[in-house]
Amino acid sequence: MAFRSHSGSQQTSGVALHNASMRGVRDRPAHIEQRGLSYRRSAVAPYETEPMLASTSAADSGRQLGEGIRADFPILNQKIHGDKQLVYFDNGATSQKPKQVLEALREYNEGYNSNVHRGVHFLSAKATRGYEDARAKVAQLINARSSRDIVFTANATAGINLVAQSWGRKHLAPGDEVIVSVAEHHSNLVPWQLVCQATGATLKHVPLTRDGQELDMQAYAKLLSPKTKIVALVHVSNMLGSLLDTEFVVEQAHKVGAMVLLDCSQSVPGKPTDVQALGADWIVATGHKMCGPTGIGFLWGRQEVLEDMPPFLGGGEMIEHVYLDHSTYAPPPSRFEPGTPAIAEAIGLGAAADYLQDIGMQNVQDFEQDLGGYLYERLSSVDGITIYGPKPERRGSPLCAFNVDGIHPTDLSTFLDFEGIAVRSGHHCTQPLHHALGISSSARASPYIYNTEAEVDSFVEALNSVIDILK
Amino acid sequence: MAFRSHSGSQQTSGVALHNASMRGVRDRPAHIEQRGLSYRRSAVAPYETEPMLASTSAADSGRQLGEGIRADFPILNQKIHGDKQLVYFDNGATSQKPKQVLEALREYNEGYNSNVHRGVHFLSAKATRGYEDARAKVAQLINARSSRDIVFTANATAGINLVAQSWGRKHLAPGDEVIVSVAEHHSNLVPWQLVCQATGATLKHVPLTRDGQELDMQAYAKLLSPKTKIVALVHVSNMLGSLLDTEFVVEQAHKVGAMVLLDCSQSVPGKPTDVQALGADWIVATGHKMCGPTGIGFLWGRQEVLEDMPPFLGGGEMIEHVYLDHSTYAPPPSRFEPGTPAIAEAIGLGAAADYLQDIGMQNVQDFEQDLGGYLYERLSSVDGITIYGPKPERRGSPLCAFNVDGIHPTDLSTFLDFEGIAVRSGHHCTQPLHHALGISSSARASPYIYNTEAEVDSFVEALNSVIDILK
Repeated sequence: MAFRSHSGSQQTSGVALHNASMRGVRDRPAHIEQRGLSYRRSAVAPYETEPMLASTSAADSGRQLGEGIRADFPILNQKIHGDKQLVYFDNGATSQKPKQVLEALREYNEGYNSNVHRGVHFLSAKATRGYEDARAKVAQLINARSSRDIVFTANATAGINLVAQSWGRKHLAPGDEVIVSVAEHHSNLVPWQLVCQATGATLKHVPLTRDGQELDMQAYAKLLSPKTKIVALVHVSNMLGSLLDTEFVVEQAHKVGAMVLLDCSQSVPGKPTDVQALGADWIVATGHKMCGPTGIGFLWGRQEVLEDMPPFLGGGEMIEHVYLDHSTYAPPPSRFEPGTPAIAEAIGLGAAADYLQDIGMQNVQDFEQDLGGYLYERLSSVDGITIYGPKPERRGSPLCAFNVDGIHPTDLSTFLDFEGIAVRSGHHCTQPLHHALGISSSARASPYIYNTEAEVDSFVEALNSVIDILK
Repeated sequence: MAFRSHSGSQQTSGVALHNASMRGVRDRPAHIEQRGLSYRRSAVAPYETEPMLASTSAADSGRQLGEGIRADFPILNQKIHGDKQLVYFDNGATSQKPKQVLEALREYNEGYNSNVHRGVHFLSAKATRGYEDARAKVAQLINARSSRDIVFTANATAGINLVAQSWGRKHLAPGDEVIVSVAEHHSNLVPWQLVCQATGATLKHVPLTRDGQELDMQAYAKLLSPKTKIVALVHVSNMLGSLLDTEFVVEQAHKVGAMVLLDCSQSVPGKPTDVQALGADWIVATGHKMCGPTGIGFLWGRQEVLEDMPPFLGGGEMIEHVYLDHSTYAPPPSRFEPGTPAIAEAIGLGAAADYLQDIGMQNVQDFEQDLGGYLYERLSSVDGITIYGPKPERRGSPLCAFNVDGIHPTDLSTFLDFEGIAVRSGHHCTQPLHHALGISSSARASPYIYNTEAEVDSFVEALNSVIDILK
């Protein structure tokens, strides 16, 4: 791929982004405006020089996101319901997969499909190499110290359950406390309910701030005590889009001796992730939201933490020696990967990690910040709309969950679908968060790296006409 | 596909097969013999009439297996180590996937990739339909009463762990007994060790018969008592190839009120499976051994049994209502499918079920019986060989595990690989079985529906020269 080398990028803060954004607006040629390619920073510079050309300058590093990579995602180029151009704004639920990922899947399935680890023959050795290379690629994407810190799981949910059941059943007892929040996805809530029921530990919840836009960090600090054994929080909310202050969360938790798990399902796909800098003890993410296949996710854990965890699910691959009455277990990550793994899917996830790294996660974040800001701004103009979560500059994702006065979100999304626009409606697996906000459901538009401002325009236009119809 | 309609097939017993086999041998034209297509029954008749033509007569029903379907598996048509034609005899570890399955994956990934269940938009509705259709296809393949009896899991191992942890933790207590066997795959042994450790129940093991060829059913009957709460046994052994007397196992277990789980990982890919006739309470199998993708397997359970099982892993999709402190759960199968499922993989497994049903599982079984018999017969002629497990007529699989006097099986498989032949060596995730047989490892050749007698010939020829080199 042609778009490596992003070393010169200096936009790491909201301020720098705004500067870049202003520079972009100033320099933007009119024809780009018309083509709907006017996202603020990352879209502009490459059009002013040679697109696709690698460069070390901050302004034009990386490949053009949005329109510039749509050729990698032919699925987007389809009409539905007859003649409606698909606008896929349901990336918070799952992203599309670029050709490069599908090609990696195809190469495996058609070229070297074989079981891993246990075979000495040619195909098996090649599959094993592919599978372990994929682990290294994921490790590199999140700056893990070693690929041995990456446990492949079926999805993010499976990773959280693994920690809850393995670490939780070992370390939790009556009187202990587990802290989650009211904004958690069910996948980071129900596993803790189940393990608290099993161990007698107590579940505590970080509430929202008074404005309901993000988690209340002062309340969080007050919940912490020596009783707190583990804190499990969402890094970027899949409904509010809010970004957790991880530095504060980790520092405060570690101060009282509590472990920290971060649900990074929505953040790893869109932001640079450096697990060593984050300081958490575990993170989880899922392949299908980050350009990878379904059926694969990962748990990252500090090696000494993983080593402390007893086996959870038993089977082949995770053992050292099996006797009739007991077994001894392999070190991590094998210990937590029983049975034949999702080989093709891991290899596909490795290709997705490569794809995102080639673009550069800083570029992804800048692009999402710009496009998300544009979406928020355009949506804000819609009559009777409530957008949940903080202002764009406090968000970690371009997603917008919203409601329109007097209209059920399911009706909104159904009618938007007739116009070709795919948004989600419902509780987004965050029923307690919806309860806390006094609503039962919402609509959610969630763009990703291949979406454009033109699509935002189409969406908002369609939304306005749907509201006209439904009102 | 062109090869439906197998209603006239009457070969359901070993005797009928032998008759058919003799008829085949008598009628076989010389040129077929030379092309190595001389497996006894199913290979012959279609060559005498029109190949690929659907028919209702017993002799030529179904599509030609072996050479006749190799075009569906282009992966087999490759040379490795320079100029060595690949002979893939590692199907006990994983099968290859036909074009039809890869096409179903491609259609999903490139055409309608979307998350399921929670979306009302076009792609999501289509993905949901594809996912649920796949469930119905798997249900049909094993004659389940309803597709609601099929729980998609990451692999067979995950299905067994689900039963062990959900049903086991609810129903097992000190004094209770769990029966497995010395021949279990680690995936059907370690989960029961873990749940027995957690609940205080006792694990009992069915031993081998004195000749070490299969499970001792008299000893099994003696192990049963009112203390027995569950029996978990392998249907077809992945090392001995032996076939469990399921009628006896189920009848005896149910007499004392025990539940029965069958590990059908090696049997579903090769035999007609009728879960209603089997009478067991659960079966598990895995996609990647039955022409399907990695990352997907299934648990079948009688609906009332599944309903009795509490949730095991928590997350999205498996809930009804989530409150901060507790949740209520969806009915099966959703209750046991937390998080975004392996959507593409389930759809691929559905296509695999279609593929196998189109061939006809009786045809698959007949073919495997013939090819397995031929493999066993040819291997038996090798100097100093020990083949484990019963004679072909008592086998449920064409696989052959073996050792050759004075040669380590890893050396065998390594040198066979140099000749292009992929066989596995090691303990095949059955360490206790190997201990019981007084060995630490073995080599295993496991053909499947696309393999041929010519490949068996190549394999045995290569084995003889490898033995010459290594001795």
